[in-house]
Amino acid sequence: MAKEKKNAISPARSEDYPEWYQQVVKAADLAENSPVRGCMVIKPWGYALWENIQSALDKMFKDTGHKNAYFPLFIPVSYLEKEAEHVEGFAKECAVVTHSRLELNSEGKLVPASPLEEPLIVRPTSETIIGEMYSKWVQSYRDLPILVNQWANVVRWEMRTRLFLRTAEFLWQEGHTAHATREEAVAETNKMLKVYEDFAQNYMAMPVICGQKTEGEKFPGAVTTYCIEAMMQDRKALQAGTSHFLGQNFAKASNIRYLSENGSQEYAWTTSWGVSTRLIGGMIMTHSDDDGLVLPPRLAPLHVVILPVIRSDADKAGVMEYCENLRAALMAKNYDGKPLKVEIDARDIRGGEKTWSWIKKGVPLRVEVGPRDIASDSVFVGRRDDGSKKSMPRAEFIATVAETLGEIQKNLFARALKYRGENTVKIDSKEDFYAFFTPKNEKKPEIHGGFALAHYDGSAEVEDMLRKDLKVTVRCIPLDAEEEDGVCIFTGKPSKRRVVFAKSY
Amino acid sequence: MAKEKKNAISPARSEDYPEWYQQVVKAADLAENSPVRGCMVIKPWGYALWENIQSALDKMFKDTGHKNAYFPLFIPVSYLEKEAEHVEGFAKECAVVTHSRLELNSEGKLVPASPLEEPLIVRPTSETIIGEMYSKWVQSYRDLPILVNQWANVVRWEMRTRLFLRTAEFLWQEGHTAHATREEAVAETNKMLKVYEDFAQNYMAMPVICGQKTEGEKFPGAVTTYCIEAMMQDRKALQAGTSHFLGQNFAKASNIRYLSENGSQEYAWTTSWGVSTRLIGGMIMTHSDDDGLVLPPRLAPLHVVILPVIRSDADKAGVMEYCENLRAALMAKNYDGKPLKVEIDARDIRGGEKTWSWIKKGVPLRVEVGPRDIASDSVFVGRRDDGSKKSMPRAEFIATVAETLGEIQKNLFARALKYRGENTVKIDSKEDFYAFFTPKNEKKPEIHGGFALAHYDGSAEVEDMLRKDLKVTVRCIPLDAEEEDGVCIFTGKPSKRRVVFAKSY
Repeated sequence: MAKEKKNAISPARSEDYPEWYQQVVKAADLAENSPVRGCMVIKPWGYALWENIQSALDKMFKDTGHKNAYFPLFIPVSYLEKEAEHVEGFAKECAVVTHSRLELNSEGKLVPASPLEEPLIVRPTSETIIGEMYSKWVQSYRDLPILVNQWANVVRWEMRTRLFLRTAEFLWQEGHTAHATREEAVAETNKMLKVYEDFAQNYMAMPVICGQKTEGEKFPGAVTTYCIEAMMQDRKALQAGTSHFLGQNFAKASNIRYLSENGSQEYAWTTSWGVSTRLIGGMIMTHSDDDGLVLPPRLAPLHVVILPVIRSDADKAGVMEYCENLRAALMAKNYDGKPLKVEIDARDIRGGEKTWSWIKKGVPLRVEVGPRDIASDSVFVGRRDDGSKKSMPRAEFIATVAETLGEIQKNLFARALKYRGENTVKIDSKEDFYAFFTPKNEKKPEIHGGFALAHYDGSAEVEDMLRKDLKVTVRCIPLDAEEEDGVCIFTGKPSKRRVVFAKSY
Repeated sequence: MAKEKKNAISPARSEDYPEWYQQVVKAADLAENSPVRGCMVIKPWGYALWENIQSALDKMFKDTGHKNAYFPLFIPVSYLEKEAEHVEGFAKECAVVTHSRLELNSEGKLVPASPLEEPLIVRPTSETIIGEMYSKWVQSYRDLPILVNQWANVVRWEMRTRLFLRTAEFLWQEGHTAHATREEAVAETNKMLKVYEDFAQNYMAMPVICGQKTEGEKFPGAVTTYCIEAMMQDRKALQAGTSHFLGQNFAKASNIRYLSENGSQEYAWTTSWGVSTRLIGGMIMTHSDDDGLVLPPRLAPLHVVILPVIRSDADKAGVMEYCENLRAALMAKNYDGKPLKVEIDARDIRGGEKTWSWIKKGVPLRVEVGPRDIASDSVFVGRRDDGSKKSMPRAEFIATVAETLGEIQKNLFARALKYRGENTVKIDSKEDFYAFFTPKNEKKPEIHGGFALAHYDGSAEVEDMLRKDLKVTVRCIPLDAEEEDGVCIFTGKPSKRRVVFAKSY
């Protein structure tokens, strides 16, 4: 029996994917559950990822003409009621504020006091409160468009939570725009979907399919919901971002009206679009391996970690000086338009433990420097994406480091795209469809499934059936799907294009 | 009677300072009240100020070794109870979440449902929930120090709110650190106070006094609270930031213990420090004038606005091209280490209205460009800080613009410092003290008061008396106060130094 390679994360992806995910998050010290039900603590390494996501997206939003603003955390219950589907979607799970004070009761226990006249909910999303403000800001066509984004925390009282993927409180951005015409609002919805696609693919190195949601899966209150869907390494889909064309639904609910150029009163057309800390979960599940987190260089909090190899006190000063010089030389280099992020890990712990700690944190490049390397003016470089390790001249490493990071970024995307391709199949019968999504081996449920491209008649009945039978949903109707005459594999009714089916997060 | 100059803001500062403030905020379109009691909406121009504040402070925090993280919005009521003074300070005004769902009652009205086992409060500050996490993260002296900051929203159910200065929900940062020794924690407290001083003076151009709070004014649960205090143009004090040495109070409440190098179990020493969107209020009240907002260039969302002067359609193309070129030339310039922020306002509105809109928004430099200017290759430049206007060669303006912005920044600070100096007096008798803080002219209460430097014995009785009689408090015991033997002007007891008394926000 061959000696098995030991990995840093146990269980492996193939053994227990959900548990592997939890262990990757833990080993990289990204986040942890808090004692507050469903609320996570995002630890510095995880938050640094969020900061990098924010910074890149924020620039993209501003480059497309949006400005940031901030709206109240609380929404009066009566606002939620204004849009019928919306209240249906969010009333079932929300944090309700009912009192404005605590007081000691006769047993010396703190209890809620000073009940509010009208309860407030903590925003699960802000269409209604922002709509109320827009109704004041918009009077004439000259006040349109309003192109505003908000970075905020929101709360949805989810019963089953998982770090980053589904938490009661999460961080996100929500863009809310109002336009004079339907066409403009539709164009905005599409534009922001493309921004999300660009970000997911070019920053997160995560391939996504842009598509439209079915009636059953769209945002409560939207006319049309568009999304980006990614495939995780357990072949499940992750909805990574959504862009909603809200028509005049919320404008009517909030009374956002304007005087048009020809003097008539019209309702505005609105959109909303958002991505959240869930993206971090998607990034983890797309790239990480059985040794832990793997980070795309463009979002990594650290590009290069320098690990001094000091075996005796006599080596120390020389090795540290060499490392400091190396750091300075690297930090003078640019990657992605900004100075390289480089740290020296001088902690007094075992070399193996130290190296593994950075492997588990997903840093793209590790550089070990010991007396022997210094003697030959070379460095020992480990690449996180492909696990390769090699010695190379110091000057060469410095000269090529930015290029190497670029390669890693490309490599991660290519690998994920290949994986998705290998696990996406066209399916042309109900029988094959059910087989595709039914695990044959109960101990290895992960070896089945993926993205199924199949013809479907668009009916809610089929969706209900698949949700119940297989926990499979229509992830989206891809925007770039070829027109192809076919028949729904479930009902035999005509269909013009294939849609993407998958199990999902 | 001389013709009075008409100002953009009515009333003037001298007429009704609080109302002037509201009007400045409104005219600059910074923020407005929302329909949610006490919660404001921060509009794009106001939020851009907050983004600039965040960006500068965040860099200062990181340069001093801190990392960002994110902790839950909610705090279980039982956590609040762990620190006696703390609960006393915050239980009286907090948003209490008691239910996790809304349902329709028999009258078709949405009402709270699914009561929580334990109510949660929306964080008014996060010492207790962060302390709980630190108690898990800290085991050994090797885990210390923890140097973490959080950017977040917090809620304190204030009864009387004022935009930016006091709102039920506000945005802030809260640093929370844990250390192995008292000395380290004290040093951290002082270091962050100095960071705040540096930021207030060098970015906001707002002179501040660094000092220590009295027992009566310190943070609930702190051993010592340090603060920066600024003088507004109504001569009232604004507490602009605080840094707390928490001793072992919260470490004991949350059980943050570590195994020391010599094997004993010790409680950690903690600190916390914060500034909030209140800073924006301070910035407004320090620099703005009767024409509206005046912004320090280092925090301005826009440095230069270009105003094309187009009197006929024939002029349009030429003027716009000249303006575009001017913008490009300016944006190629750096100010404060970053490219200059420049916009062209091409709105089709009256020139006067357009100019005034930017005066009211506080943009440091306005540049008018019309056919006559173009003919002489010159621009007409208006400076917001001193109201000066002059024509100058285009090339000269471009060559000196960064320098001019630097001058404006300095000028604003110097002006505010002069104002504070003129309104700070040493007072050596109770009679003079009461006169100083008692308005003689009921119609012009603002012409009295300021900062009084007086000897004080440190007693709570005197503080209570002054709060009751004059609404005056000890703002701080200045850190740089000279030792000076004296007697308390209220009790005759010995005093070693003068403290700062003022009315305050």
